[in-house]
Formats: sequence, structure tokens, C-alpha cells
Amino acid sequence: MTEERVLRPVPISGFPEWLPEARLVELSWIDRIRRTFERYGYASIETPSVESLDALLQKGETSKEIYTLRRLQADEDDDSDARLGLHFDLTVPVARYVAQHFNELDFPFKRYQIQRVWRGERPQEGRFREFTQCDIDVINVDQVPLHFDAEIPRVVHEILTALDIGAFRIRINNRKVLQGFYEGLGIKDPIATIRIADKIDKIGPDGVAAMLSEELGLDDDQVRACLDLTQIHTTDASFVDAVRELGVTSPLLDEGLGELAFVMDELADLPHGDVEADLSIARGLDYYTGTVYEGKLVDFPSYPSVFAGGRYDDLAGTFIRRRLPGIGISIGLTRLFAKLLAEGRIHIGPKTPTQVLVALPGDERRAEAVRTAATLRRRGLNVETYHQADKLAKQIRYASRKQIPYVWFPPFRDDADHEVKDLHTGEQHPADPATWHP
Amino acid sequence: MTEERVLRPVPISGFPEWLPEARLVELSWIDRIRRTFERYGYASIETPSVESLDALLQKGETSKEIYTLRRLQADEDDDSDARLGLHFDLTVPVARYVAQHFNELDFPFKRYQIQRVWRGERPQEGRFREFTQCDIDVINVDQVPLHFDAEIPRVVHEILTALDIGAFRIRINNRKVLQGFYEGLGIKDPIATIRIADKIDKIGPDGVAAMLSEELGLDDDQVRACLDLTQIHTTDASFVDAVRELGVTSPLLDEGLGELAFVMDELADLPHGDVEADLSIARGLDYYTGTVYEGKLVDFPSYPSVFAGGRYDDLAGTFIRRRLPGIGISIGLTRLFAKLLAEGRIHIGPKTPTQVLVALPGDERRAEAVRTAATLRRRGLNVETYHQADKLAKQIRYASRKQIPYVWFPPFRDDADHEVKDLHTGEQHPADPATWHP
Repeated sequence: MTEERVLRPVPISGFPEWLPEARLVELSWIDRIRRTFERYGYASIETPSVESLDALLQKGETSKEIYTLRRLQADEDDDSDARLGLHFDLTVPVARYVAQHFNELDFPFKRYQIQRVWRGERPQEGRFREFTQCDIDVINVDQVPLHFDAEIPRVVHEILTALDIGAFRIRINNRKVLQGFYEGLGIKDPIATIRIADKIDKIGPDGVAAMLSEELGLDDDQVRACLDLTQIHTTDASFVDAVRELGVTSPLLDEGLGELAFVMDELADLPHGDVEADLSIARGLDYYTGTVYEGKLVDFPSYPSVFAGGRYDDLAGTFIRRRLPGIGISIGLTRLFAKLLAEGRIHIGPKTPTQVLVALPGDERRAEAVRTAATLRRRGLNVETYHQADKLAKQIRYASRKQIPYVWFPPFRDDADHEVKDLHTGEQHPADPATWHP
Repeated sequence: MTEERVLRPVPISGFPEWLPEARLVELSWIDRIRRTFERYGYASIETPSVESLDALLQKGETSKEIYTLRRLQADEDDDSDARLGLHFDLTVPVARYVAQHFNELDFPFKRYQIQRVWRGERPQEGRFREFTQCDIDVINVDQVPLHFDAEIPRVVHEILTALDIGAFRIRINNRKVLQGFYEGLGIKDPIATIRIADKIDKIGPDGVAAMLSEELGLDDDQVRACLDLTQIHTTDASFVDAVRELGVTSPLLDEGLGELAFVMDELADLPHGDVEADLSIARGLDYYTGTVYEGKLVDFPSYPSVFAGGRYDDLAGTFIRRRLPGIGISIGLTRLFAKLLAEGRIHIGPKTPTQVLVALPGDERRAEAVRTAATLRRRGLNVETYHQADKLAKQIRYASRKQIPYVWFPPFRDDADHEVKDLHTGEQHPADPATWHP
């Protein structure tokens, strides 16, 4: 043992990590997410963790969140890496990827991407500096049929139901409804209105009303109509009548209502209340042009969205002179998992994938134990051989602590039987490694 | 279409990415690696991509490769992130992890970790700035049985055989053999000798001889013995006799020969030539204290090692006052995959996980197509619905381009049959989505 100073290992704020037993659950979640994405024909891509700063900064507003890279030993005047930043979402990367490989991809391009992203934000509940996002997008040349606006929330619904995360709600709106409604009201800057309306969860209806009136100069009738619109949320297509009753009309509003009604009708088979047309959903970004999604945990209404997405007209205009519309969604895996873990909503099980611990009766029986483990492994089981010839009670305790379900006892003598113990029931029986099933 | 300047999307040197068809193979490799790790009872962990610079710099010598992070908008005097760096391997992270969670882990701790790492090196063949490593380690308090020195190369052998990467060789040595041999020769600084001997692949035997003589002052007999040792490589335990013939003895040498012979004997069932005791393998790091591994592609002998590892006495002494020896190995997934991909050794197949494309006979049949896809999905198939009512020939071409094996035709009329076309054979038959198997 060295007597040098010991460097205390401390967690770094905003960079979560899990114990093996929680990681095992997270991994099973990722498997489920991926399997469902693939079930709908989305193909995996992975992009580098870095993009050029020019690419990352194309949208300007997010620049403050970017981590740039610098080699520790770089000369002061060596900026060869200084123009690289860690990606802060998977949207810029997929846009750059599609543009770069445009001639090698087949469209429509359905891709999924499960990767870490980084944001140099102040860590707080639900906000991390490094976290995993699970994205799907359908991207096509010139047009993407409305059919996909319904497929995307269906995929997410299937995943979250399978993950058994408790009640959740998929809230859907359409930017054309908002913009068309504001235009119909005679508002000059519908986009600015959308941005203000998006703050309703944070500043409340009164705050939104004040901003609309002060910053955009809306009159009382306009403000009231905007607020009335945000109050509309229905679990079916009846929101159309509710909007009509407000007496506002415009061609864009009609188009948006038609699209949103189509999506709600397509999802009508999902359990009542899981999906809601919610006309308060705005999603602040300029990016979106049609359907928008936002997902919340019903039991934690003040916790940030656990997924979000929508339809856009122009994925990669910064990179390529082709019109590439698309629609996509991003599940905030770390945000979702961290919250449910902290709330004790996740069933934590074994600390290892091992299904069978092969006990070691004595060092002279090691070859027999190793052979037994190999036989069981060839039959598809996850098997560990106990590391040393301890007392059997100690070996069983090890399995029990790690929640390994079975302990296998190779014969103590060549002419004796194998036996297997089920730690759940406590029962122990003779068994043959070549035929035994758990 | 905007008329703004288009930002040309360019690859960033040293940060590889693959097209979907190659990524699909890479993902299948990762699945296989992970499954094999789990089959031997290794548990997954993931650590953050960053560690504190203090932790990363504990070994000093690697400091020049580290990428540090800086927020783009950070004030000049704000160094809150300046003490964070991206990890350059998975060894520092696991050491910090084990020390930090020591009281919550059960030992022996068998963990695997498949993650990206970053090195600010000049990119060249086989050297990337961002790449994926697949690590396993067995870590225990006080001692790790020699049994694991044989398990680790067996796991790697099983993986590489399953991945069908062509001929590879697992070269094994033991640091005690080298150190004991040099001690037996009366060399004062065996560690410095190991470092010089490690350069034999780069500078050749003459270069090593010159350095041993000039830098360490070894006499001709000593130099000759050192070089003779590096010439010994055998596919079984016969290296012991070859070393004995050199006439050098020491207790540490005996111990090392015994350990290496044990490992070779344990692996004797593997195909002849895949595993070799190679007494030239040194692995320069101070870290290793017993068994060391190195893996090469037989067809590309000048390409760098595709896996490496070994036994160490003290994993986490920088972080915790506990003796934590271990043994592990790291597979350089990106290095391995990139080379075989570039050499055309990887069979590239479909561009999508989709197994069945459900054709869309006409927009009025969309509901039927969606229903058919849902039925097939529930039965475990990966299914895409074609996005628009194009001519069927065009829909079939789309499936063919993406190498989707089957195209499903829902009935054109309510009273007609479903049909499925096998694009490989060209055959088309009536089929029932509720019972059909590929």
C-alpha cells in the first residue's frame, strides 16, 4: 500500500452514472427502445460526438450550451481542434450526415440514433451535462406523407408502455393551427406569438397575456382568443369544434386542424387519455412547421418533457441545396430513467447478468467446474465459475447478494451427481448440465 | 430553397462514421461482444465521458492525448469546466468507479464496458481521435485467482471466432518471466529493460541491442540473452524448456514460467496456432505485473494490436487505500472494424433492419396496409409500410435497393388475398399475415 496522497473519487455534477444493478435496467430499456425502432424499420446510425463549430452554430441560439474541445498540450497558437464542439443534440448531426452522404442514402431515410449528447448548462433536476437521447426521424426528398405524423407517436407509445414507466401523456399540436389561428385573428407576427404562448407552463396565462399585450401590442379580444385557444385539449378530434367555436378562420388554420384531426383519428385505438390534442403546445423552435409532440409523466407534472419532436420542412438547408422535410422525435432516456430511479419507480433486480453460479467444491475440482460452466454456456446461459474454493455457504451468499438465481454444484467426486439449487425456492435437485433448463 | 451560402458537410479527420449498411454490421458485432461478455457473467457499466483532469493525469505520461472541455461562452476567468477531460481509455474510469462505489459493489467485480474514448493524437492508419473500446476486467479485493488469466483470452477468442474476422493470434507473455529473467541475468533495472524490449516491433533486434548496451550498459552476453528470450514463441507450454536452455534462473522467473504454462495448458483446446506464448511481448506500461496479452490480425502484421490487456496488482491505489488487483483486456472495436471494412473483408448487406415492406396499392388501402404491418410486427417482424401509393414496380425497387427481403401486398379489394413476394427467389404466393413465416 502506497502512502501517497489519495485522490478522492467524487461524482462530477451533471454527469450521471449508475451502479451495475441500475445499469442492467437501463440497458434493458435501451434494448427495448432499439428493438421497437427496428420493428418499424428505422436503421441505426452513429455519428461522431463532435461536429465543426460552424455546423453546431448554424442555429445561433444554442451556442452557449456547447462544449468545445482543446488538447491539453496544445500550443497556444494551435487551433486545429479549437473549431470542434461536442454535439448538443442529434439533430445537427443527422442533418450534416444526410447532406454529406446524400448520394449514398436511400430515401425515405428512416434512421434511429441512440447517443450521448452534451450541454454546458447548470445542472438541475432533469437537466444534465451529459445524457443519452434516443431519436427517430423519417426524412425524404420533397415530401413526407402525413401517415408518419401518426406513426411516430405510436412508436413512442409502444416503447413507454413496454417500459412500464407509469402514466404518461403524449400531447400533440400542429404549428399550422397556431399560426393559422393567429393570422386569422389579424396578428402580424404569428411566430413571435408562438414563442410567447410557449411560455405558458412557466409564466402562466396571466404572464402570457401581459407579454402578448405589451410586447406585441395585441388588443384584449386578441389576447383572450389566444388564451382561449391554449385551454383546448381533447383526447379525440373534438378539438376541431372547440376551435371553430372561437370564430376564427384562415386557410392555414383549416389545414392544421385537418392534419391534427387525422393524427388523432389514426391513434384512436390507443388507451383513452394517453394521447391528447393539446393546443397549448408550441415548442419554441423555428424549426417545426406542422405536427409537434411533447411528452410528460402524469405523476410528475412539473418535471420537464421526457420526449419531444415534430415535423420540419427543411432538415439540412444549411448543408445542401435539396429540400429535405422530415418528422422525428427524441426520447430523453437519461431524464426519464434518472427521475423514475430517484422516485423508486424502477424495480432494481440482479447486479449481474449471471444466471448460474457454478460453485467450486475444491481446487482439485476446478477443471470439472470449468467444464460444467462451458456446457451450460454453450446452451445459452450466462454462467460464472466461483473464483476460489471457499466454504459453500460463502459461495451461496455471493450468489444471493448478486441475485444470481441458481447455484450449480459440480460433483465432489467423479461418480457423484451434479446438483442445482434454486435460490428463490431454496430447492436443490440432481441435474445434468447437458439437459437442464432454468 | 434558400439562397444563403451552403456549409459544405465534411468528414472530420480521426472521427469515423459509417453508412447505415456498415453500421448494421458494427451493431451486430457489438451485440455479439456484449452477449459473450454476459455469457461469462460480466456486468455492464457505463461511466461519464469525462473525468477530472487530476484523475486522468495520475499516470502522467498520457497527458498529451487528453481533450479538455470548455464551454464556448465561458468567461475567461470561469474555469469550472476547465478541469474536465474526455477519458482516453476505460481504465482510469473503472478505477475511479470502483473506488467511488467500493462499498456498494460486490467482489469479485466482473464488469464490461463498451464506450467511446478520445485521444487528441494525429490520425493515421488504425489511430483515431474517437473510437470505441470493449473492455472486460475482473477486480477483487487482495487477490484474483490465476484461473481468470485463462478465462479472459478464452472470452476474446470466442468473440473473434464468432465475428469471423479471419486469422488472428492471441500472444501471451508474463511480466514475471521478463523481470525474473533480467534479474537472473544480473540486470539492475529490469523495468527499463522491459521498456526497451517492448520496442522490438518498431526498431528491430539490432535497435534493441544497441539501446540495451548504450542506455543500460548491458554487456554482450546479457544483450544476447535478452534477444534470445524475445525469439521464443510456442503454441504450447514448451517455451518453458526453451527458456531453461538459456541457463538463466531466478525465483520470479520460475513463478512467471509456471503462471504462463498454466494459462497455455488451460487454453490447449483452442485451435492450434490461435494462441501463442510469445516472450517478446512486453506491453510498456508500468501498470502490468503478470500475464500480458496482445492481439494481431495475421493477414495485417504491421497493423497495430486489435486487443491488449493484462494483470495488474493495484487498480485504484490513486483513489482508495485498498489493494485491488485485477486482470482485463480491451478490444479496439473501431480499429478492428475500420481495417476489415477498408480491406473489403466485411460482408455488407441490407441498409435497414426491415424484413418486410408492406406495399401500398393505393391511398384508399392505407388502413389495410397499416393493419397488415401491425399484425406482422406483433409477430416479431421488422416491418415498414411504403410511404406513398407509387407504382408497385417502384415500391419493389425501393425494397430491392435497401435489400429488404420480402414485399407484402395487402389485398387490392376487401375480398382478395394477401400476397408476399420473396425478392431473393422472385416467387410470389398468397399468405396470411397472422400465420406467415419468412
